[in-house]
Amino acid sequence: MRVLDGKEISESIQKQIEGDLLRMEGYVPKLGIICVGKAAEKLAYEKSIIRNFEKRKLKAEAFEYPGDISNEEFLAEIKKLNDREDIDGILVLSPLPLQLNEQEALQLISPEKDIEGRRIENRGRCFLGDFTGFIPCTAIAVMELLQYAEVPLKGRRVVVIGCGKNVGIPLISLLMEQMATVSMCHLGTGKETMLSLCREADVVISAAGHAGLINASHIKKGAAVIDVGISIDETGRICGDVVFDEVKKRASVVTPVPGGVGTVTRAVAARALVKAAGLRKTWSRGRGD
Amino acid sequence: MRVLDGKEISESIQKQIEGDLLRMEGYVPKLGIICVGKAAEKLAYEKSIIRNFEKRKLKAEAFEYPGDISNEEFLAEIKKLNDREDIDGILVLSPLPLQLNEQEALQLISPEKDIEGRRIENRGRCFLGDFTGFIPCTAIAVMELLQYAEVPLKGRRVVVIGCGKNVGIPLISLLMEQMATVSMCHLGTGKETMLSLCREADVVISAAGHAGLINASHIKKGAAVIDVGISIDETGRICGDVVFDEVKKRASVVTPVPGGVGTVTRAVAARALVKAAGLRKTWSRGRGD
Repeated sequence: MRVLDGKEISESIQKQIEGDLLRMEGYVPKLGIICVGKAAEKLAYEKSIIRNFEKRKLKAEAFEYPGDISNEEFLAEIKKLNDREDIDGILVLSPLPLQLNEQEALQLISPEKDIEGRRIENRGRCFLGDFTGFIPCTAIAVMELLQYAEVPLKGRRVVVIGCGKNVGIPLISLLMEQMATVSMCHLGTGKETMLSLCREADVVISAAGHAGLINASHIKKGAAVIDVGISIDETGRICGDVVFDEVKKRASVVTPVPGGVGTVTRAVAARALVKAAGLRKTWSRGRGD
Repeated sequence: MRVLDGKEISESIQKQIEGDLLRMEGYVPKLGIICVGKAAEKLAYEKSIIRNFEKRKLKAEAFEYPGDISNEEFLAEIKKLNDREDIDGILVLSPLPLQLNEQEALQLISPEKDIEGRRIENRGRCFLGDFTGFIPCTAIAVMELLQYAEVPLKGRRVVVIGCGKNVGIPLISLLMEQMATVSMCHLGTGKETMLSLCREADVVISAAGHAGLINASHIKKGAAVIDVGISIDETGRICGDVVFDEVKKRASVVTPVPGGVGTVTRAVAARALVKAAGLRKTWSRGRGD
């Protein structure tokens, strides 16, 4: 059994990033993080992203707005970030408060700054199997992990648990592109059905956000298990959907939480920022301005 | 066992259409059919659509272009149809010749005339589970048939065979919206895997275009079977993916070919045309011009 540490993949993505930065003549791409409200875990997440991007020789700046900002004011703030020449990519920390229309806000992000692939056109491209636009970073991170561990996908049975629009749904397209036979489980799927699908699967990807959901009884011997879930257990520690100590005894490959998908996702987001900067600037003409 | 005839559903959709037409003060919506090349079956299909729309008290006009039309000329022709006030919806007969960039052409269709939901934004909306835009008519027809036959979907296992962007892929979103547990089979799926998934499924939807693909051994007793395939058998007759005479003995519901999904798809396309006309015109101000 192999514990698939995200660190190594993250480092190999960092090498790609540094290669791309070399062509940017000293320009340092910058992420704008949009954070609405003062929830402690959101602010902690924001700070950890900034630290991570700085470690990667990139810049990140937080734009914090009060939790009761009106939809109109919020849209105006997004327009300001679109217009800022020094911001190359925009990341919106979800969920947004209820008075804000999330899809309207996401749709306002400039296409070339939409590094999370949340605009409708980027969704549509993904749906059609065209992956040239921006794609949700977590979904890409899952594919990077599978590829790195050389998990075969063609003709294999893959179960995706959780059909969120930022992980499960884009994964359908990415997995089918690799000719995997994909089954989708979600809140409407009965326990027995999920168990039976998982037991027959060569790969189980759990993005439910439900601690302890996947135990050894769900896994075929030798399956690959990718844990996208993030929860806090009763002792206050971060944990995934997968009962790691049990599952690692049956699986061929399993990702830990923390240190698995999340670690790779940050590297993928950083690479997307560099791609975005590359789309906006013309390096042969200096700083592009 | 129930043979699910498309005719009855098609007639009930026609009643909706006639109700909508009543509000249009005598205006008759008109479809523009784009046909490139002179392939006999394309021309036959084109004529059958025109006849069908006329029977439905709608208009349809064919726009035929030579098989060697250049991409530039073709895009210019689409722009002309966009600008024509009398054309409410545009239908492009696929496949297009290789010198034409299909997605570029589809993307040029005015959003309000894209009755087949082939623009990238309409794909993106479908992907996000927002079905307010236009959605591929065949996928909608499948859902109409399931709904009409009162086939339960919530928590049920559904297998979709064939992941084309106009049927299989939009069906994933439509079925998950109904909380079905969906598995996707395609050319990369092995025979054994497909057999095992189908045998456990409450609903099998086959859109492979492969005559005889689904026989009684694939079907759980009492399953619903929707046949989207269209092929020509060795005797020259139109047939579906499903071995109808065998499967009808095990299934609870099965659709015939011809007379099933295809019949409902035309009704759905006609309804989409009327919706498109409604979006473009303001009836309270007369003809809207």
